[in-house]
Amino acid sequence: MPTLPAPITAAPDKDELAGRLAQVRALMKEKGLDYYVAFDPVNIYYLTNFANNVHERPFIMVIAASGTPVMLCPLLESSHVKTRARCDLAYVTYYEFPSPTGQNWFDLYKTLIPAKAKVGIESALPAGIAAQTPGTYVIEDIIDDVRLVKTAYEIGRTVHACSVINEGHRKLLEVTRPGGLEVLIYGEVVRLMMGKVLGEIQDANLIACKFVGAVWPPSISHDPHLVPTPLTAMEQGGPHVSIVTSQVNGYGVEVERTFFLGSVPDHARKPFETMMRAREKAYSLVKPGAVLEEIDRQTRQVIIDAGYEKYILHRTGHGLGITGHEAPYVALGDTRTLEEGMLISIEPGIYIPGQGGYRHSDTVLVTADGYARLTDAPDSLEALTIAV
Amino acid sequence: MPTLPAPITAAPDKDELAGRLAQVRALMKEKGLDYYVAFDPVNIYYLTNFANNVHERPFIMVIAASGTPVMLCPLLESSHVKTRARCDLAYVTYYEFPSPTGQNWFDLYKTLIPAKAKVGIESALPAGIAAQTPGTYVIEDIIDDVRLVKTAYEIGRTVHACSVINEGHRKLLEVTRPGGLEVLIYGEVVRLMMGKVLGEIQDANLIACKFVGAVWPPSISHDPHLVPTPLTAMEQGGPHVSIVTSQVNGYGVEVERTFFLGSVPDHARKPFETMMRAREKAYSLVKPGAVLEEIDRQTRQVIIDAGYEKYILHRTGHGLGITGHEAPYVALGDTRTLEEGMLISIEPGIYIPGQGGYRHSDTVLVTADGYARLTDAPDSLEALTIAV
Repeated sequence: MPTLPAPITAAPDKDELAGRLAQVRALMKEKGLDYYVAFDPVNIYYLTNFANNVHERPFIMVIAASGTPVMLCPLLESSHVKTRARCDLAYVTYYEFPSPTGQNWFDLYKTLIPAKAKVGIESALPAGIAAQTPGTYVIEDIIDDVRLVKTAYEIGRTVHACSVINEGHRKLLEVTRPGGLEVLIYGEVVRLMMGKVLGEIQDANLIACKFVGAVWPPSISHDPHLVPTPLTAMEQGGPHVSIVTSQVNGYGVEVERTFFLGSVPDHARKPFETMMRAREKAYSLVKPGAVLEEIDRQTRQVIIDAGYEKYILHRTGHGLGITGHEAPYVALGDTRTLEEGMLISIEPGIYIPGQGGYRHSDTVLVTADGYARLTDAPDSLEALTIAV
Repeated sequence: MPTLPAPITAAPDKDELAGRLAQVRALMKEKGLDYYVAFDPVNIYYLTNFANNVHERPFIMVIAASGTPVMLCPLLESSHVKTRARCDLAYVTYYEFPSPTGQNWFDLYKTLIPAKAKVGIESALPAGIAAQTPGTYVIEDIIDDVRLVKTAYEIGRTVHACSVINEGHRKLLEVTRPGGLEVLIYGEVVRLMMGKVLGEIQDANLIACKFVGAVWPPSISHDPHLVPTPLTAMEQGGPHVSIVTSQVNGYGVEVERTFFLGSVPDHARKPFETMMRAREKAYSLVKPGAVLEEIDRQTRQVIIDAGYEKYILHRTGHGLGITGHEAPYVALGDTRTLEEGMLISIEPGIYIPGQGGYRHSDTVLVTADGYARLTDAPDSLEALTIAV
């Protein structure tokens, strides 16, 4: 196990953000773009450290090939942006949504980009804003591309975020017992993680914080995206599947485990063991240069060979960063290659209706010669069979 | 005060949702649209009762002029949709994001709409999905238009949602004392509201629930969108401004008050009294047929006449429904008229740097002959000066 990078909790400094902007501009140049427009709050956060809630009043960041980027935002929010942004920004504010004729956001937007410019927009840009964009636009997810490989700073933030969910997951296994209610487990785990974050980052931005600690008991664990209700009760045996995820002041991470309360039903042994072998196969392939879909193909094959092809519901993993789900994808169809500094989840799953689901997930850093697992939870059947 | 409609907590039935769809189709016909595409999770929730978190795997609802609407969604989520949807839906699922060539969401999307169709899309539809939309598209926010006037069912749900935040606000005034920390107030208020919702709606959908109970103390209350940090401390005097909002199993509501701890500084009396007169002016104009921007104009004028024009930061109010912020807007530039069954906030504000902010907000139903306030909190300076 390589030594993990040290955790970081401080906000990014100007140099960190200037480095990200420089990479965006390098790609703009490569694509022949005069301007780039960022609207996705995640991309604005990446470049500025300002997290906004999307509402009817648009925030639009206009980036020219050089000079200070412009933040077009509502008057009401400009001091909010200034409080959190850690980079140079010029501000153009509109009064309200809507405003009297001639003073609306789109009237100002039109003054920020020349009519002849070639403009890159995100695929996430709402069609109503794309339609108001001056110049000629092309969809190019440049900021998303820059976000693929993490900086040393981002890795430090993620190491810290993982320390939070690692504690959350320990608490989850400690408090989950047959008959226990979802809402009480959730409360205990979330309270612990929130307390740790607030203790360690006193100016944590609540808009960039989310906490989830939940368990899918065996009667629903075959259905990983069916959200349990608050009064869902834990059961005897298993497979129970835990999900502990958090956006820790901006950085999204996850750890998930398949576990058993009291005893392991006989029918659970083969799928659990198959999931573990698929997982080992995936990890054995994680290193710079590996083609993402090839990792998924070989990992799936382990499950297919065990006769469980019809119980596969999802890819082997996905990227993480300032969101909990982002590119790259460890999936058939993603032909990119892994690079040092990418963060991915490894989580092959098997879902058998009537029995339950089998999935462990971790947050994993791609290193120069392989990987480092940033999350830490028991993983063997023995360690995950909890005496009750 | 008119009698309020009875609170409703049950999920919508098929007839309620069929009625909404019929209204959407009537507008499609009026606009000459063969198909309408819903992507905004709020609009999908409105038509189906299914709340999704937007992530990289798209959920797209395709509505033809007649027949069963189609939900294009990831395989992983189809049982989740089926669990919550309360209307007829046909399902088309894709395996993953991404998928191998020919099996991606956009490959299936192209089979759902003929190439010659005229298609309506939302202004919120991401440009990357608009670009994959078959046929010829026009931006028409039809579902948003239908949502403007609430059904009797929606009003009942909103009455229930307001009963939750009314209790939350009572608790907030009870626990806010000088020196108290934001995070503790937030914890008390949110816990109470969450407990009430879970007690009253046992299958509440956590994806459609949000709870906020916060106070802006006088040193920051002049800046209504600057989010307090967890360790922000309450102060002596005021103006403190409370915000209690919730998405109660899908329905968004708010109640906000300007209040004082111990004593009222002399400089606060005139702005408080001006805000109250502006608010009375606004309420005096709320009735079916009133032009929205005219309410804002006359309400602003009260503040302007008092010499506070430069301290106006926002419009008089906004619509509420299945979101906490939506059309119509009580704002200069919104030339629509109020109709019976609309839900709006009334919240003119005055924000004086160095002193603080002055704003009360309520969730208000437009009735046949005026309005009914669905939120309930003290509003006079006397009642809002709390002995400490």
